[in-house]
Parts: sequence; C-alpha cells; structure tokens
Amino acid sequence: MTQPQRVAVLGTGIMGKPMATNLIRAGHDVSVWNRDRAKAQPLAAEGASLADSPAQAVEGRAAVVVMLSSGPVCDEVLFGPGGAAHAMAPGALLIVMASIGRSEATGLAKRSEALGLRWLDAPVSGGEKGAREASLSIMAGGKADDFTAALELLAAMGHPVHIGPAGSGALAKLVNQLTVASTIAAVSEALVLAEAGGADPARVREALLGGFAYSRILEQHGERMLTRNFAPGGPAKHQLKDTRAAREVATELGLDLPLLALTDGLFADLVEAGGADLDHSALYLEMRRRNRLPIGDHLDGG
Amino acid sequence: MTQPQRVAVLGTGIMGKPMATNLIRAGHDVSVWNRDRAKAQPLAAEGASLADSPAQAVEGRAAVVVMLSSGPVCDEVLFGPGGAAHAMAPGALLIVMASIGRSEATGLAKRSEALGLRWLDAPVSGGEKGAREASLSIMAGGKADDFTAALELLAAMGHPVHIGPAGSGALAKLVNQLTVASTIAAVSEALVLAEAGGADPARVREALLGGFAYSRILEQHGERMLTRNFAPGGPAKHQLKDTRAAREVATELGLDLPLLALTDGLFADLVEAGGADLDHSALYLEMRRRNRLPIGDHLDGG
Repeated sequence: MTQPQRVAVLGTGIMGKPMATNLIRAGHDVSVWNRDRAKAQPLAAEGASLADSPAQAVEGRAAVVVMLSSGPVCDEVLFGPGGAAHAMAPGALLIVMASIGRSEATGLAKRSEALGLRWLDAPVSGGEKGAREASLSIMAGGKADDFTAALELLAAMGHPVHIGPAGSGALAKLVNQLTVASTIAAVSEALVLAEAGGADPARVREALLGGFAYSRILEQHGERMLTRNFAPGGPAKHQLKDTRAAREVATELGLDLPLLALTDGLFADLVEAGGADLDHSALYLEMRRRNRLPIGDHLDGG
Repeated sequence: MTQPQRVAVLGTGIMGKPMATNLIRAGHDVSVWNRDRAKAQPLAAEGASLADSPAQAVEGRAAVVVMLSSGPVCDEVLFGPGGAAHAMAPGALLIVMASIGRSEATGLAKRSEALGLRWLDAPVSGGEKGAREASLSIMAGGKADDFTAALELLAAMGHPVHIGPAGSGALAKLVNQLTVASTIAAVSEALVLAEAGGADPARVREALLGGFAYSRILEQHGERMLTRNFAPGGPAKHQLKDTRAAREVATELGLDLPLLALTDGLFADLVEAGGADLDHSALYLEMRRRNRLPIGDHLDGG
C-alpha cells in the first residue's frame, strides 16, 4: 500500500543508484542528480527524471535522499552556492544517508532546521549487495515524527531503525564500523593461529561458522581472506577513515576503547604497507606480514 | 539409517548429559559413568546403563565419548589407576570431546595409540543449548579414517568437521575461543560508545544485527549485556583459561596476536574485579568500569 511520493536522490553512485532504483520500483516519482551525469543516465530508463543541478532535482520534492561521498561534499551540495537545501520547500524532509561524521550530522541538522526543513541522518550498512536487494540496515537519527514520516521511503531501501535524536544515526554507523573493523582483526588473528598451528584454516572457519564464533565477517570476509579476494567492497582506506572518526568521537566523550585503538593502528599499518585500495578484509595480509607469513604480491611492499 | 553401536559416555554434566541423551535417541546402546552418580541417574530412564567405574563403562564398547571438565581430569580418568583406556579393546575409538589443550590432546593421542586405540580430539562449541538440540559445532582432530568411523556418532550430537591431525580439534577450539573472546570485547566497546554518545544501545544493537556487524555474540551476548543477564553460560574464568591457553600456543608458535593479548588482559581484569563466575558477556561490565560508567552490583568491587 505504497503512498507514492515525489522524491529526489542526490548522488547516484555505487550505492545511490540501486537505492534510487528501489524507490522507483516501490512506486515513487523520483528525480535524480549526480555530478557525473553519465552515472545517473541509466536511471532514466527506470523512470527517473534527470536534473541538471541539485536545486532543480529537489524543487517541489517532499523528500530528498542524499547519498554523496562524504560530509564535506554533502555540505557543499546542500548549503554551497546554488545549494539544494535553499531550493527545498519548508517542511520537506532531508534524509542524509551518506556516511558522515556525528558532528557533521548535527551541524547539517541545525542548518536544515533553520531553513524549516525536517532532518534525518540515516546511514546504512550492507554494501552494494544490500543496496541492490533493498536489505540495507538503515540507522536513523532525528525526530520520531520525521522518522515515521520517512518510514515508507526508507523501507523501500532496507530495514530502518530509529536510533535517537539527530546525529545518532551517524553515531550508530561509527559503532557499526568499529564493530566490523574489530571483528575483521579478530578473524584475521584466528585464521593466522589456525594455519600456524598446522590446521587447515578453511576447515577451522567452516567449523567456527556453526558455533558462537559465527559472524557475517567470518563468513564473507573470512572467505575473502582464504581465497585472497581483496577486490573492494569496502576499501581499507575508508575503513581507516571510519576507525579514525570513531576514535575521535571516543576521545571527545572521554572514552578508553582499547580494541578500537589497536584495530585503528592495524588498519593504518595496512594502508601504509600499500593496502589502501584493497578490501578491508586485507587486514588479514597485515596480520600475516606482522607474523612473517607469506603474503604474495597483494601489497606494494610485499 | 543408524547403525546401532555400543558406546560409553564418561562425564554426564551440563554438556555430557544431553549429548548422551542424543546418542541414545539415535538408537545407540549407551553406558554412562559420572563421578557424582546422581548426575548420571536421570539417563537410566532414557535407557542408559549406569556404570560404577570408568573401566566398567567402557568394557566392550566400540567407542568412548569423554566429556570431563579438563585435560588433567581426562588424563586421570583415562590413564590413572583403574583408568578407562586400559579397559578398552584395541581398535576401539576414543573420542575426547572435552575442551583440552593442544599439547594435552597430542599427549593423550600418543598414549592412546600406544595401547592400540584409535583417537579423536573433538571439542565442541554451541553450549548447553547446542548440546540439547544436537546442533553443536564439533571440531575433530585425528586420522581421516577414524573421523569417518565416528561420523555417525558425532552427527547424532551436532555438525562434525574434520580439521586435521590429532591435536587440531583442540587447536580449532582455541581458535574458536579466541574469536568469541575478541568479539565479546568488540561488542562491549560498541555498546559503550553507543550509550556514551547518547544513543539507545538496544536500538543500535538492533540496527547492527541487520548488517555486516552481525555476529552471534552481538545477538546473544549483546542481549545479555543490555539486560544485565550474567548468569553463566560460559563463566568468565573459563574464558580467561581459554584466552590464556591460546596465548601460550601463540607464543609457542612465535606469533604476535595483539587482539588476543589485549582481550586476555581484559578478561583477567574482569576476573580480578570479582567477575570470575559471571557469564563471559560480563566483559561489558569491565569495559564500563574502565570507562567509569555505572555497573550496578554485579562485581564485588562495584
């Protein structure tokens, strides 16, 4: 029983494109804008209208989904010269689903509210596959009423959960990235210990998947580690950006989170060793390098 | 198409009792022995024959499942005065499913083989629930032929995987425990960051369960953390014993596994703070204590 809405999507890259497609398929009237227009073009065949500017895309739209590459890019596209936020009607809903920092989110929320806009920070987890299959985990921060108003749109793209006030969606995403990063490090150590101890790490992984040690990381990234498939996915340099941001928030809050600090250092080592553009599961290579196990030619320094 | 076998089970505690029950229900003829006979008594109603000694239990049995509390206890019951191993017929299969050290396993394997016995170290993961539901993850070390011979028995208790030679089942279990311990630490940090940042940690957990951060630990132990349900389950002191054993093996192998070292230290802190007998998910309390967040009266020092 979808109530069709007039929606804009700003940013139709790896994630934004399938998300826009799912909004169209759910029956919504979708306008799209992307800096590189060629990346938005295929959406026209799905039924989207292509806009020449962010301001044109959002005009007359009840809700605007933003899936740009970073906080500063969201800031520029929304509030820079010719910015989209100024072209939105008061009362329209701005939903920033890009992964941005917690203070970036609260800053943008304040400026949006000053223009009479409603705000949600609603970053996602689940990757390109989750975006395609509309199975993204969506972590929303903002007012409960605004979350309710956005629920139908969000549900067309995945599984939305209202975390708390503005900024708490961004915080939840950092918590998610912290958990993913530390679990990748834990699985890397596990497979190194198994192999060094003389067991077949693939069989150890298989056995572990059946018990309390099961994680999606062990299943998906563990398989990448064992088959040396480090084509991203989520590149290590982005994972490092996230652990760095999580450490900054932890420091602001006066927290001492030792696994986060350690894992952040390991990802920094991986990036320094030449693994910036490998999938974050390549932390396994860094753990092997650290332990003088063969790593093939995946790292520049290898 | 079960081929009924004559089996003995030594040790019918929290895990051994439901495992013996599942062997009986699969059609096997099962004799049982437990030091405290009262704990074996209920199995008589299921159809088990109760033995007065380990030697009596194993006499004429094709396979002997050992689920005692530790390596030294297995050693004593199998090879001490009146030990069961000496009462087993040559060619019989000794399956030690207790969690014992890797060198304990290889030592017992050698002594068993010297008596002409066949050997598997086959520790499990999945807890009491897994034992009851015959869904244990079973990590088996030993000869491939002996694994094949044991497959039907093991499958009556869970999901067996052949890891490699004798000792590699025990190694896999240590790898499992390392993974579980580090993941508990990662989830503890995640929930602390969520709460300190002003989000509802229960909603953050819910959202994270839908993405790459999903782990059985986040699901089951995460719920324990948030509801402060620290009745074991797996007590922290056993988890510490396991991380300590994993560190020892890592040291023997010349490995540097920083998360393991850190997590082991955190469990040591928890035990020292009075949490030895709480479920291992109580590491969350240690993470809160470390960050001066309220911990209620769960820890003696709280």
